[in-house]
Amino acid sequence: MMDSRDGLQGPHRTLDTDIESFFNSAPPLKDSLDIGRKLKEFIDRHSFSSGNKGPSRIVCVSSGGTTVPLEQRCVRYIDNFSSGHRGAASTEYFVKAGYAVVFLHRRGTCQPYCRSLPENSLLECFELTEESSVQVRQSHSEAVKRAIRHHHTATEKGLLLKLPFTSIFEYLQILRMVAISVKNVGSYCMFYLAAAVSDFYVPWESMAEHKIQSASGPLDMRLAQVPKMLSVLRKEWAPMAYCISFKLETDPKILLEKADMALRKYKMHVVIANELLTRKEEVVVVTSNERITVHRDSNEADADVESPLIKLLVEKHSAYIKETGTSN
Amino acid sequence: MMDSRDGLQGPHRTLDTDIESFFNSAPPLKDSLDIGRKLKEFIDRHSFSSGNKGPSRIVCVSSGGTTVPLEQRCVRYIDNFSSGHRGAASTEYFVKAGYAVVFLHRRGTCQPYCRSLPENSLLECFELTEESSVQVRQSHSEAVKRAIRHHHTATEKGLLLKLPFTSIFEYLQILRMVAISVKNVGSYCMFYLAAAVSDFYVPWESMAEHKIQSASGPLDMRLAQVPKMLSVLRKEWAPMAYCISFKLETDPKILLEKADMALRKYKMHVVIANELLTRKEEVVVVTSNERITVHRDSNEADADVESPLIKLLVEKHSAYIKETGTSN
Repeated sequence: MMDSRDGLQGPHRTLDTDIESFFNSAPPLKDSLDIGRKLKEFIDRHSFSSGNKGPSRIVCVSSGGTTVPLEQRCVRYIDNFSSGHRGAASTEYFVKAGYAVVFLHRRGTCQPYCRSLPENSLLECFELTEESSVQVRQSHSEAVKRAIRHHHTATEKGLLLKLPFTSIFEYLQILRMVAISVKNVGSYCMFYLAAAVSDFYVPWESMAEHKIQSASGPLDMRLAQVPKMLSVLRKEWAPMAYCISFKLETDPKILLEKADMALRKYKMHVVIANELLTRKEEVVVVTSNERITVHRDSNEADADVESPLIKLLVEKHSAYIKETGTSN
Repeated sequence: MMDSRDGLQGPHRTLDTDIESFFNSAPPLKDSLDIGRKLKEFIDRHSFSSGNKGPSRIVCVSSGGTTVPLEQRCVRYIDNFSSGHRGAASTEYFVKAGYAVVFLHRRGTCQPYCRSLPENSLLECFELTEESSVQVRQSHSEAVKRAIRHHHTATEKGLLLKLPFTSIFEYLQILRMVAISVKNVGSYCMFYLAAAVSDFYVPWESMAEHKIQSASGPLDMRLAQVPKMLSVLRKEWAPMAYCISFKLETDPKILLEKADMALRKYKMHVVIANELLTRKEEVVVVTSNERITVHRDSNEADADVESPLIKLLVEKHSAYIKETGTSN
C-alpha cells in the first residue's frame, strides 16, 4: 500500500515505517476475499448505477471499541468501552438521508434499528401461543415491528453493508480496504469514524504465544502506540473523502482543545467532541472555523442527538462536494 | 465478612489481608439491595418449599469473562475472552436435571437456550407479513420455538435466576453474596465456576480517574494479582458446597498439571481441565483420585460435551450429598 511514495524519505518517514510494520506484523485477515468481494459489489452498485443522478453518497460508519490481544491464542485482551450506540443510531439517520452505509462495527455491539429493544430481545419480546406458534408480546409489538420494517427496507434497497471486526488488527485492515475501494467515489464518500480505537497495542510478533501464566507478583506490561491511521487515510487511502473523527474525553476541561488538535494534526474536515457523561445529550461539531453545539431535542422522549447531528453533517458534506466540484 | 476469624493471625494472614483490601477498595455494587432480595427469594423457595422431598439442589453457574477497568470512569479495560457458551449450555443441562440455577453471567454473553440462534436473532429470524404482523422465518422456526419454549418452562418453574456482571469487582461481590446466601443449603449446593476470571487487576484507588492520555511513547502498566477467592469460598463463604472450578490453557502440555495444582491448592472437589482449541469436543474431569475424559457424542450433530459432563457431575454431587449425610 506504500508503493505510491518512498516510505524511507521525507517528513513522514517514521509514521510510514510504523504503519508498515503494524500491517506487516498483523495476523492476516481471515475472510479478506469475502469482504473484498462484498465491498466491491456494494460500492460499484452505488457509484455507477444511479444513471444521470450521479453517484450515490457513501458513508463508512465505524462503531464500537477495538480489542488489543495480549496473547496470540487470545484469552486476554485490552478493550475500549463502546456500546456502539452512536454508530448504530447514526447509521439509521444516514440511511434515512439516502446514504449507502458501510457499517464497520465491533461484533456484538449495538445494531441499527435494534436500539430500543431489550438486550435478549428474542427471549424478552416473544412468546408461544397455545397452538405453539411464536408471537410477539403486545408490550414490544410496535418496537419489534419498527425494527424489522426499517431493517428490511434498508437491506432491500441495498443501503446497508455490515462488516464486523473484533481486534484492532481486523479493524484497521478492513478500514484500509474500504478506504481504497472508495477512492473512485471521491468527495461523494464520507468517513464517520465513531469507533473507539485503541491507542496502544502489543505488536503481534512480541506477543506471548500461550496464555500468560499468573506467577506470584504483579504483571508488568509495555504497550506500543498504535500508529495514527487517520493521517494515512486522509493523505493516501482516500484523499478526496470527507472525513469526520470523534474525540471522547471524560474530562471536559481538555475536550475542545484535544478536538482542535486532532482536527489540525490529522487534517480532518470535522471532529465531533463528546464527553463521556453527556454524550447522548449533546456533542460539539468542531471544524477549522466553527464550533457548533448540537443538542438532543429535549421536548421529544425518543429524540436522538444523532438526528440533528447527521442533518448538519449531510449539509456540510453537500457543501464540500459542491466546493470540490467533482466526484473524483 | 472476616469477622469469624482473626484476619491478622495464622497462616492465611496475607490472603485474608489481600481479600479484605480487594473488597474494601472495590467500587460499591450499584444494585446490591435488589440482587440480595432476588437471591433470598430464590434460595428460600428452593431450600424450604420442597416438603418431604428435602431441599432442592441449587447450582451457581458463573459464565463469561470479567473485565478489569484501567480507568475509574471506564473507557479502557482488560478483558478475558469467553463467549459464555460453556456456562449457558451447562445451565440448560442443570435445569434439565432438576437443579435451580443461579446463572451469574457476563452481560452480553451467550444465554441459555439461545446458543443455536444467529447473533442478531431478532433481525435474522423474523419477517413482516403483508398484513405487517411479525412472523418467524420458516428456516429458523424450530430453533426459535425451542428456545422460547425451554426458556419459558425454566422461568415458569422458577428454576433460573439470571444475575449479570461486567467487571471483576461486580463479579466477586455478587459471588460472595451468592455463597453466603446458600450457606444453609449446605451440601445440596454446587458452585460450577466456568467464568474466566482475571488474574490481574488495577486496585481501584490507584486507578487513573480520567481517560489515560496517549502521549508519545509506549505505555507501561503494572497490574496486581487478584487474590484467589476460591480458597475463601471453600473455607469461609460456603464450606459445605460442592465446588467445581475450571482450568483453561492453550498449552496442552501444562494443562493437567495445572488442574491438579488448582485442585489441591484451592481444595476444589472437581477441576475441569479444558484446552482452548478442543474445549467443545472434550474436557477432563479431575478429582483427587481420578481423571475422567468426557467427549461430545460425535454421532450426533447437535450433541454438546456439556450433556455427558453435567450427567457425571450430578452423579458425583449425589455421592457427595450422601457422604456428607446432611444438608447442613
